[in-house]
Amino acid sequence: MLRKNVSVIDTTAVSALCDHIEITNCSLHDKVPKVVTELLSSWSTKECYDHISPVSIPSQEETIGIVEQAKRILFPGFFSHTKLHASNLEYYIGKKTTDLYDKVSEQITMAIRHDCRRNERPCTNCEAYGHKKALSFIQSLPKVAAMLATDIRAALRGDPATKSPDEVIFCYPGLLTTFIFRLAHELYLLEVPIIPRIMTEYAHSQTGIDIHPGASIGSEFFIDHGTGVVIGETTIIGNNVRLYQGVTLGALSLPHNAGEKMRNKKRHPTIEDNVIIYANTTVLGGDTVIGEGSIIGGNIWLTESVPPGTKVLMKRPELIYSNSH
Amino acid sequence: MLRKNVSVIDTTAVSALCDHIEITNCSLHDKVPKVVTELLSSWSTKECYDHISPVSIPSQEETIGIVEQAKRILFPGFFSHTKLHASNLEYYIGKKTTDLYDKVSEQITMAIRHDCRRNERPCTNCEAYGHKKALSFIQSLPKVAAMLATDIRAALRGDPATKSPDEVIFCYPGLLTTFIFRLAHELYLLEVPIIPRIMTEYAHSQTGIDIHPGASIGSEFFIDHGTGVVIGETTIIGNNVRLYQGVTLGALSLPHNAGEKMRNKKRHPTIEDNVIIYANTTVLGGDTVIGEGSIIGGNIWLTESVPPGTKVLMKRPELIYSNSH
Amino acid sequence: MLRKNVSVIDTTAVSALCDHIEITNCSLHDKVPKVVTELLSSWSTKECYDHISPVSIPSQEETIGIVEQAKRILFPGFFSHTKLHASNLEYYIGKKTTDLYDKVSEQITMAIRHDCRRNERPCTNCEAYGHKKALSFIQSLPKVAAMLATDIRAALRGDPATKSPDEVIFCYPGLLTTFIFRLAHELYLLEVPIIPRIMTEYAHSQTGIDIHPGASIGSEFFIDHGTGVVIGETTIIGNNVRLYQGVTLGALSLPHNAGEKMRNKKRHPTIEDNVIIYANTTVLGGDTVIGEGSIIGGNIWLTESVPPGTKVLMKRPELIYSNSH
Repeated sequence: MLRKNVSVIDTTAVSALCDHIEITNCSLHDKVPKVVTELLSSWSTKECYDHISPVSIPSQEETIGIVEQAKRILFPGFFSHTKLHASNLEYYIGKKTTDLYDKVSEQITMAIRHDCRRNERPCTNCEAYGHKKALSFIQSLPKVAAMLATDIRAALRGDPATKSPDEVIFCYPGLLTTFIFRLAHELYLLEVPIIPRIMTEYAHSQTGIDIHPGASIGSEFFIDHGTGVVIGETTIIGNNVRLYQGVTLGALSLPHNAGEKMRNKKRHPTIEDNVIIYANTTVLGGDTVIGEGSIIGGNIWLTESVPPGTKVLMKRPELIYSNSH
Repeated sequence: MLRKNVSVIDTTAVSALCDHIEITNCSLHDKVPKVVTELLSSWSTKECYDHISPVSIPSQEETIGIVEQAKRILFPGFFSHTKLHASNLEYYIGKKTTDLYDKVSEQITMAIRHDCRRNERPCTNCEAYGHKKALSFIQSLPKVAAMLATDIRAALRGDPATKSPDEVIFCYPGLLTTFIFRLAHELYLLEVPIIPRIMTEYAHSQTGIDIHPGASIGSEFFIDHGTGVVIGETTIIGNNVRLYQGVTLGALSLPHNAGEKMRNKKRHPTIEDNVIIYANTTVLGGDTVIGEGSIIGGNIWLTESVPPGTKVLMKRPELIYSNSH
Repeated sequence: MLRKNVSVIDTTAVSALCDHIEITNCSLHDKVPKVVTELLSSWSTKECYDHISPVSIPSQEETIGIVEQAKRILFPGFFSHTKLHASNLEYYIGKKTTDLYDKVSEQITMAIRHDCRRNERPCTNCEAYGHKKALSFIQSLPKVAAMLATDIRAALRGDPATKSPDEVIFCYPGLLTTFIFRLAHELYLLEVPIIPRIMTEYAHSQTGIDIHPGASIGSEFFIDHGTGVVIGETTIIGNNVRLYQGVTLGALSLPHNAGEKMRNKKRHPTIEDNVIIYANTTVLGGDTVIGEGSIIGGNIWLTESVPPGTKVLMKRPELIYSNSH
């Protein structure tokens, strides 16, 4: 109705409406409450809003803050204004790490509480769990830092355009995503609900690289360029693996009701050590194994396993040449 | 000229210049005004800057603020610090919705004014239009909320990795993009200039999913992963359609002067109800129709229609296997 | 160890631990220092953190600030709250440009200092270099503005969905990326370390378009949609070239130790004037030349040169049709 009246072509309705009033008084605030009532009533029927309750849920913003804090801790001096010297480093890292512990405890506690409610479990000792899991997470940071050092070396080894580790840390979406994935994976192993996915989706939004926190990824992992890479929940990746933009490590085609049937099955491939997979190649299926040391060319579609030490190229489809004018 | 002088190899010029002065006084501020004059004079000749005038244009930042505000209204409790209870919900939504109405009125008014100027139309009642269209937009929110509930259910049905609606709302770039698209589409139907495109481009920058606000998309829409998806202005999509990353619903190849010739023609495909299109498949052309219930495999290039109930797979191109060493 | 104790299934350990204490006192702060010590000791062995020293490195945040400042200067009125009139424009641009000069000098100086240290060169006159190179950068802005005007016209000519230059400036990821690339390329020509890459990676994170600052790109450049586009360091692109989403202009496959071998060689293709390359096509190799006026279809894999005026299409792979039920 109203929509028709205000289409740009038909001005009469509006002129009629506003001719005799001050344009500046032409506000329609009084129409808003009716909309609010509609919204409120509509919600009573939708499960997706039923978390509204005194129990709060984790915060996307705080979770991103956790990632940024961990970044300052694991790459000291790169992402903060604080000038770091040998002399103030310990104090700086100590403070940041304690803050991180507090932030993580709070969010994990909220995530567990919310999950208890969602699944109608009694929420006993949720805060104790929050503190314990937060500590386990913090205690995993040195291991994560060691893994990231191998990832940085892999980038330097793999990309002719790289000049220095600083460039890798500042400029490589692959490293940023791997960093966030490695954090999220630790929380995934601790069975922390939802927060790991919020973290990897933050990475996805920053880099276009979508790694599910459930994936298992070895050391010296390097993704170059990376936009469009998708790595599924049950993927297993060995050491020293290199991927390029647009590589999908995914599941075979899913029926319309896939959600139910396939949950908790291994649906994604296994990539063994020292494999390279070039741009825009797709590898699908939970039983598909790319053997150690294999090299998979670009633009390839693979749904079967490949023995170790194999090079796979696509027989180029015939091209048709003609005059462009 | 100067550039040569300062190339890293030739240090003499610079030493000469700064040897006898305090390095800290080596600023070259006095050279800036000349650059400013050049910039100013260069603009007089470029249409792309001629909006500089007392009439202001819409703000990208404010438009993004509108999207974020709508997010807090349509997903209450998910994206704000406010703790929501049954008791304060109505007050919260009421306030947010009234604010939203004001923000939207202001931006729409600026967009219409700017458009009038750009097309040398007299700008009569622009503010009245702004208020009317803003109200129509606000009044469409309950409908948008209902559509989004179907989109969330579609995600839960379609993705084995999903655990709960919360996860879909917090972590699914497909839902975020669909949410922003559905808002922008309402403004597009109201013939609001430029703001709908700013909104969908914001979604694109967040998720890598590029949906033109002019596209028409039914209920239960689900895009998984999503990076690289492109859905063109005149695309028509039915209900319960699922797309994966890298799917293009686009136009057939365009000549160099495409801009003029093709504007306002249906250039993009029609996807009927209950269709699944797998990763990195391209469907092109305004006359191309993918019939109801069809399943289109990954990595396919389609420029012709497909009858209802069809499954389309690519005959795998031959692969060449060799030893990788 | 600990990880096992806190898995969601086994509650006993935690209950035991927290049963007799106030949940709210269940913090484990005292465990943090040990983690800090581990982190600190681990670093002594990793080259990637050895910049910790009184010499600071460039700031990613400040570099992004430089890009945003340049945006306000080159697209006056589009990305700021300041209302611009013919009367205040000169003052506004003058102030912004002087600020920009200061910001750029500071970051370039830090980048050069850091680079000297990293490569154990004596850092003489680093600040003088910083000022000189900053000035050269500022002096290149009018040239950059002129190039961007041709890019905007190319977008209007090439995209049927575009309505006005404002829309291109506000909404086109291709223009945003080209703008940032053109800035970064000027700094690359000035041999400024790392900052150009931080800039183009910022563009990449915003748009999914990854252009190395070393690429050489002519006027009237238009990328439509753009997600997944990769343009390598030694690519040469002529005037009036149009690319679509997912186009890779890249290097031929790289051995595991590619980093060393290929550095500083031309590894990426040459695209001559008036070429169009459609979505998801890959062109590889430093000797590959796409001749003037050629049109390369979508989804094509090209590793050989194409003579001028050629249209290249892929012979469509055979499709297999069956019933989807």
